[in-house]
Amino acid sequence: MTVIYNRVALIGLGLIASSMAHALRQFGLAAEVVGHARSAETRAIAMDIGLCDRVYATAAEAVQGADLVVLAVPVGAMGDLAAEIGPHLKPGATITDVGSVKGAVVEAMAPHMPAGVHFIPGHPIAGTEHSGPRSGFASLFNNRWWLLTPLDGADPAAVARLRALCEGMGANVDEMDVAHHDLVLAVTSHTPHLIAYTMVGVADHMRRVSNSEVIKYSAGGFRDLTRIAASDPVMWRDVFLTNKDAVLDILGRFTEELFVLQRAIRMGDGEHLHAYFTRTRAIRRGIIEAGQDTAAPDFGRVAQNGAKGG
Amino acid sequence: MTVIYNRVALIGLGLIASSMAHALRQFGLAAEVVGHARSAETRAIAMDIGLCDRVYATAAEAVQGADLVVLAVPVGAMGDLAAEIGPHLKPGATITDVGSVKGAVVEAMAPHMPAGVHFIPGHPIAGTEHSGPRSGFASLFNNRWWLLTPLDGADPAAVARLRALCEGMGANVDEMDVAHHDLVLAVTSHTPHLIAYTMVGVADHMRRVSNSEVIKYSAGGFRDLTRIAASDPVMWRDVFLTNKDAVLDILGRFTEELFVLQRAIRMGDGEHLHAYFTRTRAIRRGIIEAGQDTAAPDFGRVAQNGAKGG
Repeated sequence: MTVIYNRVALIGLGLIASSMAHALRQFGLAAEVVGHARSAETRAIAMDIGLCDRVYATAAEAVQGADLVVLAVPVGAMGDLAAEIGPHLKPGATITDVGSVKGAVVEAMAPHMPAGVHFIPGHPIAGTEHSGPRSGFASLFNNRWWLLTPLDGADPAAVARLRALCEGMGANVDEMDVAHHDLVLAVTSHTPHLIAYTMVGVADHMRRVSNSEVIKYSAGGFRDLTRIAASDPVMWRDVFLTNKDAVLDILGRFTEELFVLQRAIRMGDGEHLHAYFTRTRAIRRGIIEAGQDTAAPDFGRVAQNGAKGG
Repeated sequence: MTVIYNRVALIGLGLIASSMAHALRQFGLAAEVVGHARSAETRAIAMDIGLCDRVYATAAEAVQGADLVVLAVPVGAMGDLAAEIGPHLKPGATITDVGSVKGAVVEAMAPHMPAGVHFIPGHPIAGTEHSGPRSGFASLFNNRWWLLTPLDGADPAAVARLRALCEGMGANVDEMDVAHHDLVLAVTSHTPHLIAYTMVGVADHMRRVSNSEVIKYSAGGFRDLTRIAASDPVMWRDVFLTNKDAVLDILGRFTEELFVLQRAIRMGDGEHLHAYFTRTRAIRRGIIEAGQDTAAPDFGRVAQNGAKGG
């Protein structure tokens, strides 16, 4: 691969930025990768594991001279960060973010972007339940979608260059407008996370069923929900606070739908349940055919212990 | 291993029974494994792949002379099946089932059990989203829990023998009473499945977000829910119809809890959300420490395509 940006500055060194650091190096997409994290502990770990060429104590220092700046912090922190670094951005530089919500990020960041800088909001649909500078790995974006939501009047050459970087890390890139992004993500990510958090919370509160029972017998389905309910609390708090309208819209639909199924259970309407459960299988097949999940049983989970009884 | 039952009859040759067939042979727990399935196609596949020593066209024939009979059919089919095979059970035989609901199964089966036969209801907390006679594999029960719910006056020696069989297939065995089982499973399995089915249904019905978008961008969390929402529709219909009271109880709690979070989103109460999301992480850690899931990021899913951009 060829170098696409000479210097890339990663602000916030969590799962996404640390994966980018690994991928940019592995695929030779940047000549230099520098970074900043607010926490001294995170900066120390990043230096210790050699995540970046240089780690700076402030974001303002980190972005100086960078050809691409990537804000990879919780959505609620983007505005203040943009205000801090705006005056230090190199003329002609591109700045993007990786936030899971785009409307609120654009609103918070755009006022701080100087003329002559290309602000192109983005969102890689990739992640795991782990967080922090040690959680990254170069293949995180492989065959995942990276959505870009360029604003009106965005420079096509700057967008194409950022797209090439994402593709260089293995991602597929789509462009869409900011509001549509936030609605699509409310359906495919934000509301699923909220109901997973809720179900885990219900299990945790039950008095007649102990937590140890919930944990022991989780293989019946519950454990699948707990993975996404273990994601970073600050990131998710900000997602729900900033994509409020779309999430409340989808939650309303979810509740309606749940009440219809609940009524079918109460009334003993087996035909309704059967027809509903049959339809949902097709969606799973589509996801597997689209290469967005594995067809292996149980996600291809590996058994935890050595074979017993064998 | 030593043979625990001379002849085992598996009635219904889906995921659970076909996994038992593989495991019983691999671990040498039965001298003979015979089977029956209602569908001629399933019987033909079972014979074709050599799943059992013999496959019978009727359940009544299959159970004759069997030391252990395992009913592995949807919960709603247990009663009629018990009525059919009751007169053909060998005196002193043990009969168990693998249904996900125990109260309704006991109610449906018990009246048909002849004196001198040991009826010991059971439920392996193991499965995948796949079904049918080809979906089984010997390690399905490895380090999974197998719950037995012996009735009042059950013969301790017969229970111990069935327990030894389950343990021989790699499972951990717990005993609990029927009603408690149904409540625990409503929390850890039945309600999680219902909310997963619901969320997948909502995504499928959206008009402003296309199904292809839902599928493409599912890696943000949605795909985790689709796995359990792809499970066998008949089995799950029966679960909800027969564990109605416990499921409606847990659903009521779930909805209350969801409304509290929904209100926090609407009111912008970030502290509440953050505290809630922090608590749910502990449950996930417990599941991993208990060996009921993998700590590998993303369930250890393997990337679908070869590395791109590398």
